Amino acid sequence: MESGRRIERALDRAVAYAEAPGAPPLLAEALRYAVFPGGHRIRPRLCLSVARACGDDDPCGSEAAAAAIELLHCASLVHDDLPCFDDAPLRRQKPTVHIAFGEPIAVLTGDALIVLAFETLARAAGSYPVRLGRLVSLLGRAAGSPSGIAAGQAWESEEHISLSDYQQAKTGALFAAATVMGAAAAGSDPEPWRRLGECLGEAYQVADDLRDVACRQEEIGKPAGRDATLGRPNAAALLGTDGALERLGRLTREAVAAIPACPGIAELKAEIEVQARLFLPASLRAVAA
Amino acid sequence: MESGRRIERALDRAVAYAEAPGAPPLLAEALRYAVFPGGHRIRPRLCLSVARACGDDDPCGSEAAAAAIELLHCASLVHDDLPCFDDAPLRRQKPTVHIAFGEPIAVLTGDALIVLAFETLARAAGSYPVRLGRLVSLLGRAAGSPSGIAAGQAWESEEHISLSDYQQAKTGALFAAATVMGAAAAGSDPEPWRRLGECLGEAYQVADDLRDVACRQEEIGKPAGRDATLGRPNAAALLGTDGALERLGRLTREAVAAIPACPGIAELKAEIEVQARLFLPASLRAVAA
Repeated sequence: MESGRRIERALDRAVAYAEAPGAPPLLAEALRYAVFPGGHRIRPRLCLSVARACGDDDPCGSEAAAAAIELLHCASLVHDDLPCFDDAPLRRQKPTVHIAFGEPIAVLTGDALIVLAFETLARAAGSYPVRLGRLVSLLGRAAGSPSGIAAGQAWESEEHISLSDYQQAKTGALFAAATVMGAAAAGSDPEPWRRLGECLGEAYQVADDLRDVACRQEEIGKPAGRDATLGRPNAAALLGTDGALERLGRLTREAVAAIPACPGIAELKAEIEVQARLFLPASLRAVAA
Repeated sequence: MESGRRIERALDRAVAYAEAPGAPPLLAEALRYAVFPGGHRIRPRLCLSVARACGDDDPCGSEAAAAAIELLHCASLVHDDLPCFDDAPLRRQKPTVHIAFGEPIAVLTGDALIVLAFETLARAAGSYPVRLGRLVSLLGRAAGSPSGIAAGQAWESEEHISLSDYQQAKTGALFAAATVMGAAAAGSDPEPWRRLGECLGEAYQVADDLRDVACRQEEIGKPAGRDATLGRPNAAALLGTDGALERLGRLTREAVAAIPACPGIAELKAEIEVQARLFLPASLRAVAA
């Protein structure tokens, strides 16, 4: 089955569990709203690509890992959009969760999605129970403190910000989780896979900065120009569009060079190149070509 | 080592991990602030008591389970106190996290504590890796949707509230987690232990309602009379102080009767009776005697 379908099916199963009978109806509705329809599902696709390159001997486990990463990503979007952070009105072409369901349900939706990510890993641990400890630890490292997405967001509350710690935690952590958890779910040693995820996370950050500076709201599904509004650093503003596109290309080549030896290395290289191009919206892909 | 010291040591280790070098300083400070000094640590004590009654063959595992439950409890307090929920100024005799550190850090502190709870389980899974899946699932059930504390809090956003679903999820879920996870951490079948936790959760809810109605702020470390202010149901307001104390006694006896056969049953019965008395503040213990 094709990756996109495996991911949607795994996410649907996970969310169905959380919206089971007995769930408070608004929360159940908000959980599905926050996860579907998704964006490009870049992180879970990367996770499945790495698992496949490592042999993917437990497809249920790799699908659960991919779904867990995406659930955590959705949780972070819901919380980042809250009034006390970005106060964002739109996400993926529709009102954000706190606009549609109110702030209390938005806080709880994020909380419940974090929990669901870990539960999803545990429910798939049947065939290879010993892999679960590693997967939970890797997901936790990408999610919490000192270096996960919660820590990344918390750097915005500091007076003196470490820009590299900030970007590595806020964006890089989940990309690194995608590669290391893809490997771990297939029974491979995860750490050699971290550099690939980190490079792709940095590339994604540059692409996101380009979208913010160079695209219209209609194309990216959320307000453009937010970094300037919120006073956040932006690679495209610093380097110009051409400089940022060049940096994106260099990071993609570095990522491909960082792929460890594995059975499916040739196919994975090709996939990484395709996926990295999808980081950019269509209007910028033409410029980068 | 005595339970109280085991719990504080396990919590200290868990929090130390999250505040490791590289963590954003405010978040790291807020994490420790939210966990220390604690209250009576009723849930982790219950978890260790059940583990001991079941033989406690893996003390690291039962300590991790106890710490994970308390971390989740602390996370729920931080989020419940937020302006969009209870808007509470005081907790455990000091300003709440959002008052002391601001709302963004309070949201992230709750998030990071939820993550840390699961990480803490994974880090202790060395000796008995196969138990981890069950522990993660049991903790997830108590934390998320459809029936964990996030779901319990979400019932407050519903127009038509199921009072028993609400109280069972908001208070009962973590008490049930304490008993089932205590058993699971000692390698016993967890489900026969659920009823004990549920009875104690209900008893705690009645005691908490009594504290809210009958105690002064100085004694309970947070504002009194909040249920009336926020229009929430309260057993002591419905049944009167005597009626509520009688109900508390009946639930405690029911809890003791629900203890499954186990090696340490006699000691556990005595402990449950002592712990249930500690649900009440000193001024009401005299009345109940």
